Amino acid sequence: MTTKHFVVPASYGRSFTLKTGDLISIATPSGTQVSDTWAFAADDPHEHLSMDNTRSINSNVFVDKGARLVSNNRRLMLTVVEDTSPGHHDTLLCPCNRAIYRELGASDNHRTCTDNLHEALEQAGIKLPFTPASLNLFMNVPVSADGSVDRLPPQSVAGDYVVLRAEIDLTLVLSACPQDITPINGDARTPTDLQVDIQSGAAG
Amino acid sequence: MTTKHFVVPASYGRSFTLKTGDLISIATPSGTQVSDTWAFAADDPHEHLSMDNTRSINSNVFVDKGARLVSNNRRLMLTVVEDTSPGHHDTLLCPCNRAIYRELGASDNHRTCTDNLHEALEQAGIKLPFTPASLNLFMNVPVSADGSVDRLPPQSVAGDYVVLRAEIDLTLVLSACPQDITPINGDARTPTDLQVDIQSGAAG
Repeated sequence: MTTKHFVVPASYGRSFTLKTGDLISIATPSGTQVSDTWAFAADDPHEHLSMDNTRSINSNVFVDKGARLVSNNRRLMLTVVEDTSPGHHDTLLCPCNRAIYRELGASDNHRTCTDNLHEALEQAGIKLPFTPASLNLFMNVPVSADGSVDRLPPQSVAGDYVVLRAEIDLTLVLSACPQDITPINGDARTPTDLQVDIQSGAAG
Repeated sequence: MTTKHFVVPASYGRSFTLKTGDLISIATPSGTQVSDTWAFAADDPHEHLSMDNTRSINSNVFVDKGARLVSNNRRLMLTVVEDTSPGHHDTLLCPCNRAIYRELGASDNHRTCTDNLHEALEQAGIKLPFTPASLNLFMNVPVSADGSVDRLPPQSVAGDYVVLRAEIDLTLVLSACPQDITPINGDARTPTDLQVDIQSGAAG
């Protein structure tokens, strides 16, 4: 078994190649950094982690320990095997994009999770003509019975992490969300790095 | 102003071409029929009605009268201008697909909303390499603060309808959901027709 360490720099994205059985730990050293998360099957990048199918399989809008993360074909891609945070990771809201920053009055070259996804995929040799909804780790979006959603700072604390087990060979993309106008990445409104550890060979 | 009448037969899908300002009324004569709903910009079918952006814009997981239905670029595509039903139309759960019917033990040739979408698009000359999440009109999926969702029969009654105004030129696809195993289309578990009226020239 080998463990490799990586950093996803604040406001940037990165892709990771995972084999079946690999464990990936995604940590927020600051405790306040949201990680937009996507996955694509190694044998067909058009098969992607699907939030609408994942909510359907788990009968829940949040992702917590034990949740099964499935593709648009309802194939099990990842399982949440550990979570030191209060959980309730968001599946409801879109990855940030250029239109959101225009609405917020930011400059045209503000980084976005959507661009981070496509840049990371391009570096992995994948060109995708659409943007799947993201799993937003550490993002705190409570929902009420009337359907209203709120956007609050993360409830996680410094060093909290989530461990996902790859259930198929896949490409995982993480984006350390560049949102610095709303408090979704903490009241300091300062994006920070994510730390990533990948344990390979665990299935062997 | 002209009004045209259409039927979407039970368990089947159909596409409609709408011009800016057109009004489309989608009715369930039985009161129990869910209509999976998608939209695609006329000038670029890769710009599609986006449930994760629509939840973000409305800060709500339900669609009700007044809701703004936006694309993946957050462009306003449709507005809900009238709704005789109790509303709270679902944006959370995936359109039914072959994997769901396999899970439910149905035959391999059971119709699906996902196939209905792609068949209807093909007839409109559009080939789409992905399946956007659907707006599920009349579908009753309450959510609790703990994130859990339920799947209940529609709360609408016979003849209830929703009116959407097209805010751009677009292709709209409706699927009279073929689900006949769970009670999502009513306790009788019998898909029924949708009735559609399109009023054109209202903007003139």
